[in-house]
Amino acid sequence: MDFDSFFRDRLGDLKSEGNYRIFADLERRCGTFPRAERHRPDGTQEEVTVWCSNDYLGMGQNPVVVEAMVEAVRACGAGAGGTRNISGTNHHHVLLERELADLHGKEAALLFTSGYVSNWAALSTLGAKIPGAVILSDEKNHASMIEGIRHSRADKVLWKHNDWRDLDRKLKAVGDRPKIVAFESVYSMDGDIAPIREIVEVCEAHGALSYIDEVHAVGMYGPRGGGVSEERGLAHRIDVIEGTLGKAFGVVGGYVTGKADLVDFIRSFASGFIFTTALPPAVAAAAQASVRHLKHSDAERHRQRANVAAVRAALDARGIPHMPNESHIIPVMIGDPVKCRMISDMLMADWGIYVQPINYPTVPKGTERLRITPGPLHRPEDIDHLVNALTALWQRCAVAHAVA
Amino acid sequence: MDFDSFFRDRLGDLKSEGNYRIFADLERRCGTFPRAERHRPDGTQEEVTVWCSNDYLGMGQNPVVVEAMVEAVRACGAGAGGTRNISGTNHHHVLLERELADLHGKEAALLFTSGYVSNWAALSTLGAKIPGAVILSDEKNHASMIEGIRHSRADKVLWKHNDWRDLDRKLKAVGDRPKIVAFESVYSMDGDIAPIREIVEVCEAHGALSYIDEVHAVGMYGPRGGGVSEERGLAHRIDVIEGTLGKAFGVVGGYVTGKADLVDFIRSFASGFIFTTALPPAVAAAAQASVRHLKHSDAERHRQRANVAAVRAALDARGIPHMPNESHIIPVMIGDPVKCRMISDMLMADWGIYVQPINYPTVPKGTERLRITPGPLHRPEDIDHLVNALTALWQRCAVAHAVA
Ligand SMILES: Cc1ncc(COP(=O)(O)O)c(C=O)c1O
Ligand SMILES: Cc1ncc(COP(=O)(O)O)c(C=O)c1O
Repeated sequence: MDFDSFFRDRLGDLKSEGNYRIFADLERRCGTFPRAERHRPDGTQEEVTVWCSNDYLGMGQNPVVVEAMVEAVRACGAGAGGTRNISGTNHHHVLLERELADLHGKEAALLFTSGYVSNWAALSTLGAKIPGAVILSDEKNHASMIEGIRHSRADKVLWKHNDWRDLDRKLKAVGDRPKIVAFESVYSMDGDIAPIREIVEVCEAHGALSYIDEVHAVGMYGPRGGGVSEERGLAHRIDVIEGTLGKAFGVVGGYVTGKADLVDFIRSFASGFIFTTALPPAVAAAAQASVRHLKHSDAERHRQRANVAAVRAALDARGIPHMPNESHIIPVMIGDPVKCRMISDMLMADWGIYVQPINYPTVPKGTERLRITPGPLHRPEDIDHLVNALTALWQRCAVAHAVA
Repeated sequence: MDFDSFFRDRLGDLKSEGNYRIFADLERRCGTFPRAERHRPDGTQEEVTVWCSNDYLGMGQNPVVVEAMVEAVRACGAGAGGTRNISGTNHHHVLLERELADLHGKEAALLFTSGYVSNWAALSTLGAKIPGAVILSDEKNHASMIEGIRHSRADKVLWKHNDWRDLDRKLKAVGDRPKIVAFESVYSMDGDIAPIREIVEVCEAHGALSYIDEVHAVGMYGPRGGGVSEERGLAHRIDVIEGTLGKAFGVVGGYVTGKADLVDFIRSFASGFIFTTALPPAVAAAAQASVRHLKHSDAERHRQRANVAAVRAALDARGIPHMPNESHIIPVMIGDPVKCRMISDMLMADWGIYVQPINYPTVPKGTERLRITPGPLHRPEDIDHLVNALTALWQRCAVAHAVA
């Protein structure tokens, strides 16, 4: 087989579809976020304002987090030096796991190298190790859950997005087997929020184990940042709450929380947990500082919500359509990968605004979009500038018609 | 289904087999490695000397690495704030990828959140996306490769460990399909090294794509730390070289290197690369500093090799059997999980020596062992102390008979 031409041809296909991805080469500048330096391909640089970060609350540059990280690097060094079992467990991991268990009101928590790995490893382990298990998965679940379920080789049943009645019917149809129900709270690309109460009640009625991904909600919702499940007073009725340390908490890493034995079971059997170097102690220390801070401080959440509302209102005032939802995510639909990249390129080149085009496979083909995530640190003039830019482009490119 | 009692029972099984894992809760102390503070379950602390770290060269506390990390945290903040595609690419990632491509003499490199994810994502993508691919896997390959191959659902053929003649026969039997050959350079639990030249020649003869995991060799072997493939002058004949930043380089993260189109293909299609938050810029900066340092400095490698030889000689002098191999890993076989944990506990309690017992599933049942990894920072008196401790235990427990 001619591997070289195979790879070249597949990349050519992506390019001709408009789905070839070009990464923006940024330099985050601590203290000036959401501004960043962008390195252009020609080696020159320019300042941009980032409008598509998942560092939703700017915690990545919060002094509490930065100082905790610096201090722990100086105290413990760079890496953990081993897997959790073989010399890699550091006291900062232990403290962070306690902090996370407390955040969700659970007995225990387990740290993974990322939210992706936490979903993949937890679901693949539960699905593979519980004899006869069936996993019922919301049809819009994130890739990390899909791959975990696929990897488990357990039977999988898709249920209609956010449709607890469909879930109820499908749980009933499964009958007397161990059932695991996997879903998200905030769906990151459309920004819609699941009817968690109804889903939990359906799970309870059928004796199913409930598994929620709160990746886009932890730190952001609930009085202590425990996610939508905390906000709605439902955390104690959900068996597994999964989250990330890499988005609102501003660092990196993932976790699951639940009853002690369930968490210990995953700890003991999950390949993706066992056979990998632990996160650096300093990452754990920074994440703990962030989680702790957001348990007590509401200021970031308040400012962020105000900015989300302000952007939505300004878009409405200019007639720029965006997908309505209850969350902090503002999707502006374009519906074409080439157009989406073009608009993004113009925003960057002419306005110093960075909003990455979101294309396949992150969203289905035909639903390409700009995904705007206002943070607490965007200023009123940033919002004006963004909306002016979009308005000018909408007039120039007549995208409005494309998305009408 | 009663999930609670299911989890409890499975954990009970592990406990009764002696395979239940207890993590040592350490506090690495920058500047005093391999010494660390251990937090006992009762809350008290003691100083231990770590003899089982994969921070093989002590780079985790090398000032070059620590300062690079601190500086980048202060400059860029804690996290990357997004996936590589959506605002998460930072200039430090780009620089690190260039450094890694250069390390292995390849056109391109791609960074992952861990070595586990790099193997899993690269092999599952190649296996799944190349139509009709067959993956020929050394039977002792690491869990991350096994899971990646399993996930790809490509046909898999196991070949006898390090047996290139068996590989040759099996490649021939596969016939005219795309073939991928996956193996390691240094096998981490037995410490043996693959006959890379012969394997590469067999791959070339059959037009197979060669994929080597150099996780336990990068930074350690070869004049610039490019691994055993560099040491043996074979890097340019291997299609994919995979490595970690979490062991000899002392930080965290993983990568693959190869031709530009191959790497771009993985970048474009690997779910485990696409759908996850990028590593913190400071992790990338620290890793780059480490890689760069070990390209030029041989001092760490020399001291480490001298210590490995010293430990082996001292064990031989006392008649303590250890598995011979060409690498830096010294396995002392115990062959029983309960005994292995007992010896490890006594080393910790009576001698302040930390060597984690290695049990199933990391090694096959019946091959439980202590895995000793001398580093450049162990002092002669540390070596004496270790060997005295083992000698005393060998006499007391008559383990010698068990392993004879
Ligand atoms: C819903 C959801 N779950 C899990 C993840 C993975 O989390 P992480 O970025 O920490 O790997 C993401 C995004 O990256 C996500 O959107
Ligand atoms: C051979 C091998 N490959 C890959 C890995 C995974 O690398 P990482 O620890 O960076 O996830 C390991 C150990 O952890 C390993 O031993």
